[in-house]
Amino acid sequence: MFEKLRGVRDFYPEDFHGRKVIYGNLSGTAKNYGFKEVCTPSIESLDIFTKKSGEAIVDEIYSFNDKGGRGICLIPELTPSVVRMVVQRQKVLTKPVKWFSLSRHWRYERPQKGRQREFYQFNVDIFGSRSSRADFEILSCGIDCLLNLGIDNFMFHLSDRNILGAFFESLHLPVNEAFTVVDKRNKVDEPEFRSMLSDMGMDDEGYDSLIGLLDINGNVNDCADLILEDYPALGDKAVIALKNLREVGDLLKNYGFEENCKFDLSIVRGLAYYTDMVFEVFDKKKSLRSLFGGGRYDDLVQLLGGQSMPAVGFAIGLPLLEILMKESGIWPEPDFGPDFFVVTIGDVEKEALRIIKLLRKDHTVEYSLGSKNMSNQMNLANNLGAKKVIIIGERDIKEGVFSLKDMASGTQEQVVLEEFVKRYC
Amino acid sequence: MFEKLRGVRDFYPEDFHGRKVIYGNLSGTAKNYGFKEVCTPSIESLDIFTKKSGEAIVDEIYSFNDKGGRGICLIPELTPSVVRMVVQRQKVLTKPVKWFSLSRHWRYERPQKGRQREFYQFNVDIFGSRSSRADFEILSCGIDCLLNLGIDNFMFHLSDRNILGAFFESLHLPVNEAFTVVDKRNKVDEPEFRSMLSDMGMDDEGYDSLIGLLDINGNVNDCADLILEDYPALGDKAVIALKNLREVGDLLKNYGFEENCKFDLSIVRGLAYYTDMVFEVFDKKKSLRSLFGGGRYDDLVQLLGGQSMPAVGFAIGLPLLEILMKESGIWPEPDFGPDFFVVTIGDVEKEALRIIKLLRKDHTVEYSLGSKNMSNQMNLANNLGAKKVIIIGERDIKEGVFSLKDMASGTQEQVVLEEFVKRYC
Repeated sequence: MFEKLRGVRDFYPEDFHGRKVIYGNLSGTAKNYGFKEVCTPSIESLDIFTKKSGEAIVDEIYSFNDKGGRGICLIPELTPSVVRMVVQRQKVLTKPVKWFSLSRHWRYERPQKGRQREFYQFNVDIFGSRSSRADFEILSCGIDCLLNLGIDNFMFHLSDRNILGAFFESLHLPVNEAFTVVDKRNKVDEPEFRSMLSDMGMDDEGYDSLIGLLDINGNVNDCADLILEDYPALGDKAVIALKNLREVGDLLKNYGFEENCKFDLSIVRGLAYYTDMVFEVFDKKKSLRSLFGGGRYDDLVQLLGGQSMPAVGFAIGLPLLEILMKESGIWPEPDFGPDFFVVTIGDVEKEALRIIKLLRKDHTVEYSLGSKNMSNQMNLANNLGAKKVIIIGERDIKEGVFSLKDMASGTQEQVVLEEFVKRYC
Repeated sequence: MFEKLRGVRDFYPEDFHGRKVIYGNLSGTAKNYGFKEVCTPSIESLDIFTKKSGEAIVDEIYSFNDKGGRGICLIPELTPSVVRMVVQRQKVLTKPVKWFSLSRHWRYERPQKGRQREFYQFNVDIFGSRSSRADFEILSCGIDCLLNLGIDNFMFHLSDRNILGAFFESLHLPVNEAFTVVDKRNKVDEPEFRSMLSDMGMDDEGYDSLIGLLDINGNVNDCADLILEDYPALGDKAVIALKNLREVGDLLKNYGFEENCKFDLSIVRGLAYYTDMVFEVFDKKKSLRSLFGGGRYDDLVQLLGGQSMPAVGFAIGLPLLEILMKESGIWPEPDFGPDFFVVTIGDVEKEALRIIKLLRKDHTVEYSLGSKNMSNQMNLANNLGAKKVIIIGERDIKEGVFSLKDMASGTQEQVVLEEFVKRYC
């Protein structure tokens, strides 16, 4: 017997049904926000990923040489491919470019709960707008994606890398390294956190200031105001970032999503390519787990060969959504029972096939491909979960009638064929 | 600038729209026939493909060693993966198993029109029924897939490999080699065709008989009857096959699909794994081009490690469907124009966002992320192809009204906000 590879998943019908419902739901939300669906190849030239993320990424992705000797890979994320598509038509695309995509990705990692080697992500991006409205549009679309799935116990944690960046710069500390440490705050204890920063050259006063900043937590506008007042030395970049967050906060408030967001400077998104506003979404019950995140990445289009163009977006991993929805008891369960199952008694094939064909224009219809024994046919109808069974007998059909059995109630009635055809077909 | 790889395709929104419509249409047809959707991984252990198709297939597929040194590949077709899924749950699955899938495949071939290195196929299979009804169910579902897409200038060419197989056996010729030659009949001229068969040991009398058989062409039942009468020496296997085709022909006739099918023994499906009934679908206008094909493959489940289990199915390549539909002028063109575009004049953001949010429950709504200049906003509404523009002005909205402009007719009316909300939201 052949086995599937480690870290990939076979979707049997009962597994795939929920995924399809979720895909449809997420796509519908994005469409109502004016995003259009695109689809990228699954294989790309390896260099687009090393350009974006450095050579180290090669260890984490499925890369190989094709038969022409070219380094290619299975895409580990969508953004570089989407940026490539934008760059190729950068001049002719109507701005802002609002795209979404549902795509399959591969990463060579140790499989664990919610993390597979092959997985789906739902990506939403806006290219060509630097405004706070674009940040807001991405956030509100992300919030509605969850709400429309029936998920409501979540919180969007907002920040802007330029605030903490300005703070670290004012202390003459290496910003990216400091971000990496901040990103680990929830994974280590306080002494270790302090010691990592101390190793970078942060003194006790700086540490206390940092903790003060990281502990500012709550309403986006209130927190931004507080920092603007209490940390006047942070400089222009931080002030611009805080004012932008205030505008985003106003928009969220007017849109009715104020309660779904909070200010949280501990969000830096690690070493990723984000430049300004960043966010992560947490499950309120299990506050340590980030469901997904996103943010602004204004440098990537140029880095990948385009004209400078701002961009902001997010990506939701489907596996985590599935776990969350199952835990919350809102995973869509399938009902595969056919609308009709046609049972035949005697030589009525012609009439049966006529009805089956007519009904199949709008309904799911099954019949026995094997045994024509009456009880075998009824058993199959039962096993398939048929909602209604049409029983066509030789004598009845000559008189233009057949029996219609409702499987839930068990009631059975005689039906006039032509009236039935008019009603259902 | 980074380029996409050769033989793959970027789907921009206007390209992807048609694909999505077609996916939905094909899936809907299969569902009405009682097929359930499954989804397989894109990567598989290489040995499942070499087991099915021999080592030579490695030249045509994207295969490589993963970081654990295991030979894996991007799947070049769906059937082995689906068979693997059936085998893993063979005992517990309700039979017959009726599955469909839309999946991405990769083959390392020279790209040409309708043949890309990365492409989609729509697969439909029945496992666990040896009956003529299962053959018919696959054929009728395939026919309805095309009809429901609006394609009607096609013909299903039916055969059964056991008929020509019995004929070649009766002449003591190697059956698979002879099939390969027959498969090339339309690609070579008559002298070359004759010489290839002669090289295999076929004499002139045998050749004339073969041409006689291959020229039997037309109504499935009539042709089957003709061969049963004229070629009594073909033996049991051929007789069983012909009787099965007669039953399939009766079912197709009663279902109203008699005219969509014809008998054609030249269909052998090359060296593939088919065992009995086989078919190919041709565009009537360009009769040499096979759109897709399928057939019965009763040995594959056992070959791939399962209990013996009959199977029948087909796979449609999406690229060819797209070409055909575009040629016929029935490719679904997108209409991306948002239902509403909201223009604001002055400080009305709160009211604007309230309307936008309410409308987005059921409609596509856009607004300007950048300029708030009135004519810039109207230009963007025009560029996006908005159907209706909502113009919210400071003074109007205080009185609870706004302007609604229909972009097709150019007419503009004053609308009472709360009435509008009741009607549209």
